[in-house]
Parts: sequence; C-alpha cells; structure tokens
Amino acid sequence: MLVHGQHYRTIWENENGSGAVHIIDQCQLPHRFEIATLTTVAEAAEAIRGMRVRGAGLIGATAAYGMALAAREFGGDPAALAGAASMLTATRPTAVNLAWAVNRQLAAIAGAAEPAARIAIAWQTARGIADEDAAWCRLIGRHGLALIEQISREKGGAPVNVLTHCNAGWLAFVDYGSATAPIYAAHDVGIAVHVWVDETRPRSQGAKLTAWELGGHGVPHTLIADNTGGHLMQHGMVDLVIVGTDRTTRTGDVANKIGTYLKALAAMDNGVPFYVALPSSSFDWEMRDGLRGIPIEQRGGDEVKHADGWVDGRVVEVLVAPAATPAANYGFDVTPARLVTGFITERGCCAANEEAIIGLFPERA
Amino acid sequence: MLVHGQHYRTIWENENGSGAVHIIDQCQLPHRFEIATLTTVAEAAEAIRGMRVRGAGLIGATAAYGMALAAREFGGDPAALAGAASMLTATRPTAVNLAWAVNRQLAAIAGAAEPAARIAIAWQTARGIADEDAAWCRLIGRHGLALIEQISREKGGAPVNVLTHCNAGWLAFVDYGSATAPIYAAHDVGIAVHVWVDETRPRSQGAKLTAWELGGHGVPHTLIADNTGGHLMQHGMVDLVIVGTDRTTRTGDVANKIGTYLKALAAMDNGVPFYVALPSSSFDWEMRDGLRGIPIEQRGGDEVKHADGWVDGRVVEVLVAPAATPAANYGFDVTPARLVTGFITERGCCAANEEAIIGLFPERA
Repeated sequence: MLVHGQHYRTIWENENGSGAVHIIDQCQLPHRFEIATLTTVAEAAEAIRGMRVRGAGLIGATAAYGMALAAREFGGDPAALAGAASMLTATRPTAVNLAWAVNRQLAAIAGAAEPAARIAIAWQTARGIADEDAAWCRLIGRHGLALIEQISREKGGAPVNVLTHCNAGWLAFVDYGSATAPIYAAHDVGIAVHVWVDETRPRSQGAKLTAWELGGHGVPHTLIADNTGGHLMQHGMVDLVIVGTDRTTRTGDVANKIGTYLKALAAMDNGVPFYVALPSSSFDWEMRDGLRGIPIEQRGGDEVKHADGWVDGRVVEVLVAPAATPAANYGFDVTPARLVTGFITERGCCAANEEAIIGLFPERA
Repeated sequence: MLVHGQHYRTIWENENGSGAVHIIDQCQLPHRFEIATLTTVAEAAEAIRGMRVRGAGLIGATAAYGMALAAREFGGDPAALAGAASMLTATRPTAVNLAWAVNRQLAAIAGAAEPAARIAIAWQTARGIADEDAAWCRLIGRHGLALIEQISREKGGAPVNVLTHCNAGWLAFVDYGSATAPIYAAHDVGIAVHVWVDETRPRSQGAKLTAWELGGHGVPHTLIADNTGGHLMQHGMVDLVIVGTDRTTRTGDVANKIGTYLKALAAMDNGVPFYVALPSSSFDWEMRDGLRGIPIEQRGGDEVKHADGWVDGRVVEVLVAPAATPAANYGFDVTPARLVTGFITERGCCAANEEAIIGLFPERA
C-alpha cells in the first residue's frame, strides 16, 4: 500500500543483491517510518519476538525469509536449518502462520540433495510465500467487497460503518491486509466507508498501526477506546465488524487479539454481522476445539502498566499504574464459532462451521 | 479508608474553622497524594468538571458542599443559589447523584426564611449527604459480603476472584465505595479475595485509582487491559463481577463507565454473576428506558489519543496515535437489566427488575 505516495510491502528483499531482507520497523510507528534490515535468522527471530513485525501473514513471511537467511548463513546445512526452524517457531505461540511457513520451508528444502539447491529453494519458497500472502489478501478484498457493497446499497449510499479490532491491516500481512482488504477495496471503487478503530490495549496496534495505515490511504476512520464498540452497536452506529485472526480451527473457533470475543458478543446481541477475514494459511486444520486447544500467549505485565507515545520529538514510555501493582497480559482470546457470522477467505465467503469451511477447502476434508 | 496508615474520606471540612472544603485531588493519583482546597462554588464545579473528584457518590457530595460554599459566598441569596445549582448540575450529565444532591440542597434551603438559616442549613445538608453516603456504602459492604462469603464457602476457602471495571471504590464515594465495599468487607473479615482490575481506558481510573486504593488497603489484585475480562470468564477465572453505576433506572438498566456492557455480556455468556452495587441515590426513579433515556457524556477525543503517566519524576502525557487521527470518546454505556444478576444496595440485594427494586424501596412505588 502507499506510504507518503510510494508503494511498499511490509517485507522485501534488498534490490542490490546484498541478500538482506528489509522490513518496516513497526515498533516505531506511527511516529517514525523506519526501514530495518535483517541479515541473519537470529535477527529475523528477534524481529518477530520483539514485534517489529507482527500480524498473522507477516509473521509467516518473516519466518519464511528467516529460513532463507539461515540457509545461506549455514551453507544449507540440514541440522542448522532444523535448529533455525525451532528458534523461529518458538518466538510466538499463537499465530499458526508461523509454524505453517516454517514447515513449508522444511518440506521444500528436504526435496533438494545439494546445499546450494537447498539455499536456492529456501529463497524461492520465501518469495512464493510472500507473493502468495499478498495475492490471497487481494482476493479477500474482492470477496469482502461484495458484503460492503450490499450494505452500502441497503443504506442508499450512506457511509458503511465497519468496526475492527487490533491491526489486521496491510501492516499485518505482506500487502492489503485481511480485515482491511475489503475496506480498501470498497474505498478504492468509491463506496463510502468509515472505520471505527479499536485502540487495542495494551500494545495499541489499532491506535498506532490501523489508524496510521487507514490515514495513509485516505480511508475515513475514528479511533475509539476498546470499551466503546458495544455502545456503538447498541445505537446502530456499526453496520459490520471485520477482524483478522491468528489461528482459526477447522470448526470455526477464532483466536484473535484479546478483546475480540467481547466485540463478537456485542455484535451477536445487536444483530450486527461479525466477519473474520483470513487467508487459508491461518486455518489450523488439525484443531477442533479452539477454547481448549489454542495456546494463548502471555506477555509481560509491564505492557499493561505502561503506555508509550510521542512527546517532545521522541517516544517516551510512561507508568500509568502504581509501580507495585501486579498486572496480567493475555495476548489473545478465542471467539467461539457460534458468534461468527462468516469467514472471508481467498476462495470466497463461508459460514463459521466445519462443513462450510471444508466446502471451500475440500482438500482438507 | 487508609492512606499511608491514616484514615481519610475523599471530601471533608477544614477542621480549623476556615470554612474551606478539602478533597483528594484524584487527577494526581496514583503518582502524587495531594489535598486540594475548595473555597467557592466555582472551584467545586471546576473540581467536578475537571474530574479532580469523580464517581457517583463523590460528585453528589461535592455538589452538596458546592451549594454550601455558595450559600456562604452569596450570603444565602436565593437567586444566587439557584444560579449555583444550575452551574453545578451542568458540570457532568450522566451521574444522577449530582442533580439529586443539588435538588436536596435546594429543597432544604427553601425551608428557611432567613439568609443565615439558609447558610446553616446548606452546610448541615452537605454534612448529612456526605455522612449518609459513607453509611450507605458501609451497608452495601455488609450486604455484598454475604455473596462473597457464599462463593468462598463453595470454593472451600480458595480466593474469590472478583472483576471490577473503572473505579467504584472509596475514591468514587465519601468512603468504602460501592463495588469495592463488599470486597473490603470480605478482606477485613479474613475471606481470601482477589480483584481483577480493568484499567478502564481512556482515563485509566482502574489502573490509576482502583489499583491504588486496593493496594493501599492490602487487597490482592491484578491489573488487566479492558479487553481481558471475557477471556478470564471463559476460563473460569472470575467468580463474580461487581461494578458501580452512575445512574440506574427504576427498571434496572445500568449506566456505568463505557465498557461495562461488554463485561456484562461476557458474564452472561459464561454464567458468571454480574452485580451492580449502588446507594439508592444512584437510582433515577423517573426513568424507565435506560438505553433511550440516559444521556451519555461525550468527552474530547484527545483523551483517547493520549495516555498520561509517570516518568522521570513527573507526569507526562504522550500521543499514542497519529496526530491527525480523529477520535470519539463516549464516557458511559448502558447495560440492560436483562444482563444484571442483581443489585447490592444499602437496604439489601435485589433482582434487576422494577418489582424487586420497588420491593426494597416501596416509597418509590
């Protein structure tokens, strides 16, 4: 998408043949737009762990490039590549794209006998995963556009109000985003759309990333505290909720940023459609019970006690609570399939149950 | 309650006969414990408007003392007192205690023919309202204690996990608090209790005030992002929700800090009891439909875009979102009576419907 009028993806290879991989350092947004460089698998792992890159698709693409960096770094050595795979997989527990990308790399590399071929295949696979991620998100946009178009028609062209939580935007993928792809697609064809952006404490990805990228693309939006969505839905101010997911079971249970479940409850209580946009790489085809099965990352309580932002030309972290207060920080929650109106995937939309999901992806039957 | 081992109320008259009223300046908490002095009705109004005092009961008590200050300031002049009443009532729209306290003052003052008597009655009424608020909250604690005791017995003495939103603590009243009164009562009789404290963006009253006052009293607690309660309830980590209210209709609809409705939905979805603790001064006996009738305060969007906290020995406000991002800031939402398990009042507990409420307060039939 566009940044200062120039097209960017969130991850790309150095064009001068240095073999480095570049990322947008998302820890600096929205205050500074900085490009960072990854030259080793350890740097790729650290970028994921430190959330300089984050979001389901981008974590997968970064892990794929991490494997490519490892292949060159260790001369295609299989044992070293297995170690790199473990290191990358351990960085974050919830997003299924991470293991998906690493396993795809391992399978691809295993097909080559020679070290040089393994290196070449690892880079080719990383490129393929990144390109596929962007292509899938573009298709999600096309399929989701139909939902927004219909609501727009029903409202006689008045702005369609979409609520989203966290950042499932182009910054969370390689391009376009999942939850945002239908929004960008609608905006680009001239449909009036307005986005309620949950700030998404404690890391404020909505305030920092979603607001930034929607603003950059010119999509009307309003930032709200995470507490606000229920009130808006009670008063008819939300036409549609679209969120992303870090992992969705084959039965339709959705792990996403903590707080998503609360918005799904409010949507159900007020008859507001609640959609989850995801590429098929975010499905966990092995899992049936999301509430019991999906591991929920716990991060440090300091993220809850603090807030960081811009003041006097720099980023400052302030302590909001008493210094001695204990805090807990669960990163995700699971929205049961019964609260989900439907999924928007690269192959089209479907209801949130196993039969409908497998109907779109029959090869997973 | 105790602050640094000394007993405080949130508002009290100067003991040296200066005629001034003192408050704890809650805008400075938790970082600084500062006492502020009110000598005029304008200062009292500004303290309410600027949220140096906040919370249903304390707003009422401060408005009552504001009328007493006005009575002395204007020599008991009825026209000036009517003006003071208007000024105080206009400071915040949602809390019903505000108009309740001001109207009680106007009625009391109207009974006196002489200016000097009006002044004396205004002070006497303010004192009465403050003392009554503390006494009612103490009774709420006694009645709510029974609920916690029962859960404690069912859990074989394991800690009872109570989730609360915003600050309905002693800082929101004159003493004890509403939602916190049963918690303090349980803790004081040796029942193991642990409180999940919603941080309560955008003003972070949970992180700043509830965490501070629970810590001061030694009650175990854990701060969480507002997004977290649903996940905790899904996993059996909340035994009971207790919140306060700024205004509750005679039919049981509950206006409280924005986000309360989302927690009530999660409680209902997970079979967790959801109680609202309130003195009868927080009932709006005239109103039947909370969703349509209760005015919801909208504050400046800058509160959502910013966070403030402590760094380098001072309070600093940082900008979290892009500077150009629009933000909306609804202060309250309304939880329909159907989601409320019951009320805890100074007269006892009751179900959330008009018949049960009027059963406790038959004079309002």
